[in-house]
Amino acid sequence: MNTKIEISTQTERYTINFGVLEKIELGEYSKVLLVTNHVVGGLHLDRVMSKITHQDLSVLLLDDGEENKNFVTLQKIIDFALQKQLDRKSVMIALGGGVISDIVGFASGIYQRGIAFINIPTTLLAQVDASVGGKTGINTIYGKNLVGLFHQPSAVYIDTDFLQTLPTREFVSGIAEIIKIAVCFDFEFFTFLEKCDLKNPQDLQKAVQKSVALKAKIVAKDEKERGVRAGLNYGHTFGHVIELETEYKKYLHGEAVAMGILMANVLAYKEGLLTLQEKDRIFQLLQTYGLSLHYEIKNTELFYQKFFLDKKTQNQKLHFILPDGIGNVRICNDITKDRIMEVLGEFS
Amino acid sequence: MNTKIEISTQTERYTINFGVLEKIELGEYSKVLLVTNHVVGGLHLDRVMSKITHQDLSVLLLDDGEENKNFVTLQKIIDFALQKQLDRKSVMIALGGGVISDIVGFASGIYQRGIAFINIPTTLLAQVDASVGGKTGINTIYGKNLVGLFHQPSAVYIDTDFLQTLPTREFVSGIAEIIKIAVCFDFEFFTFLEKCDLKNPQDLQKAVQKSVALKAKIVAKDEKERGVRAGLNYGHTFGHVIELETEYKKYLHGEAVAMGILMANVLAYKEGLLTLQEKDRIFQLLQTYGLSLHYEIKNTELFYQKFFLDKKTQNQKLHFILPDGIGNVRICNDITKDRIMEVLGEFS
Repeated sequence: MNTKIEISTQTERYTINFGVLEKIELGEYSKVLLVTNHVVGGLHLDRVMSKITHQDLSVLLLDDGEENKNFVTLQKIIDFALQKQLDRKSVMIALGGGVISDIVGFASGIYQRGIAFINIPTTLLAQVDASVGGKTGINTIYGKNLVGLFHQPSAVYIDTDFLQTLPTREFVSGIAEIIKIAVCFDFEFFTFLEKCDLKNPQDLQKAVQKSVALKAKIVAKDEKERGVRAGLNYGHTFGHVIELETEYKKYLHGEAVAMGILMANVLAYKEGLLTLQEKDRIFQLLQTYGLSLHYEIKNTELFYQKFFLDKKTQNQKLHFILPDGIGNVRICNDITKDRIMEVLGEFS
Repeated sequence: MNTKIEISTQTERYTINFGVLEKIELGEYSKVLLVTNHVVGGLHLDRVMSKITHQDLSVLLLDDGEENKNFVTLQKIIDFALQKQLDRKSVMIALGGGVISDIVGFASGIYQRGIAFINIPTTLLAQVDASVGGKTGINTIYGKNLVGLFHQPSAVYIDTDFLQTLPTREFVSGIAEIIKIAVCFDFEFFTFLEKCDLKNPQDLQKAVQKSVALKAKIVAKDEKERGVRAGLNYGHTFGHVIELETEYKKYLHGEAVAMGILMANVLAYKEGLLTLQEKDRIFQLLQTYGLSLHYEIKNTELFYQKFFLDKKTQNQKLHFILPDGIGNVRICNDITKDRIMEVLGEFS
């Protein structure tokens, strides 16, 4: 059944549509540019195009992969839009995973100082994470998402049918973000996840909707991530360093986040925020989906230094987002280096 | 005497400080990156640096010139900031003309999804125009400011003493924007400009403050240029095509705007919005400062086609911002091509 969530941020309003993709209304826009990559395009472009009718529609196919989420691809999108003479009343549509939605969201946010952007996420990660919040960006050699802006979409279409063609590893990677949201914000949802099977389409759709609804509530309170929204970065402080050390090649984002969650949980346990039992429950749930990966830190001091490249590092002070029991989250600014090295030591 | 204007937009608040540059308070920021160019740096960097104390301060010197307001320079600023490990609590300071403030405003707006930005404009154009409104951007081969975003500064410092070293041509170019604001929004200010001499420092400071105050009032009403703010583009629809045709090389921005104002005024006269006498008064005032330049259009049809490259062209419909008497402005959407060709014909 198709349902909707209405999102209101400080500055924008938009609708997230759940369910089988239906006709997308584009009558208000002067021109439409749909951006996707060759892989997603090959699988889903025909179906999506059958839902779009517009007299001035262009399609841009990018190369697939996180390594293309950079300035070069950003400029490629902008140049294509300029060639097609998109104007301020035009819209860009992102069809794909997080890379596509992040970079198309960014391009649309700076094209003529911001035009409309519709997001059709086709991976689980993009559906539960990148679809809400308006974070856009690209990577640089210094780290991930270090350049970008907040640009809310005009509409989001979440159809879990797209996930049927998703490789298992990518699917599972998205589950990490669902678990993250449950641990941080909703104990009841966490127990639902323990009981359900996300390979079952009904359970999956429920879990995706619940994740998006929870994230939307958080983002509405804190669009620019000045407070509570930071909770969404649970597992990411460690996870980003893992991605950096492995040059974004070895692990998918959700896999790195899952490994980051395990590290954050050890820290939370040592800080008295999680009981041993709670820590194990989270571990169990990740393990159910094969997400109990262990990352071996080769050099803990080097790993520690890389925290300071993260854009969440303010004033050279480390911030850790730690669960405070299951269903609550806390920002910790006063963790000592000794304590962190102790945690890193357990993974070396 | 030093005075201040407090600016409130929908999302931000900041202060514009007028008068001789005093100590700039930077205690709240973790790191400071001052960006300027070689020319401005040579003239003013020492004086500005004497007003800044911060334990973590870097300076980046860019090449001078509008031709550097592009993706390459944008990346250069971003990369430098990443090298210096600026974080979300850091600030970028722009010291220079419109090119510097536009590109540093843009870079700070996308660095880690937006950090603080302080603007110290050193040209008349930048002081009266680029200093308020939060418009940032870069040029592409398709046109000017086609990529960018709205990013309000945290503070602006306007010291007309910087203008003493400004080449006469650049100074006069800035006067075009002052006249533009008066014609659009304030008849009394227009008559003041007719009587005063902007080469006199007291008159100049008054005119700069009045222009900024008027622009600030407009921008506060309409931060994202969805309505009344479009009035500030008087002369720009024509002016941008002139800049495009001459590849941004032959004329300074204010010179092109002045020529654009003359074209817009012919159109306004033909549309019954300006009397012959009003049209002449504006011409006279521009001429007083040597801004009564005549642009000869070589091919009126080509000139006309170039309107459609402007980012203000929505739905392929042309919008002209025309004075409605002196002190009022009107957006005209229903001008026929015949009428426009008639106007262009007078300049060919």
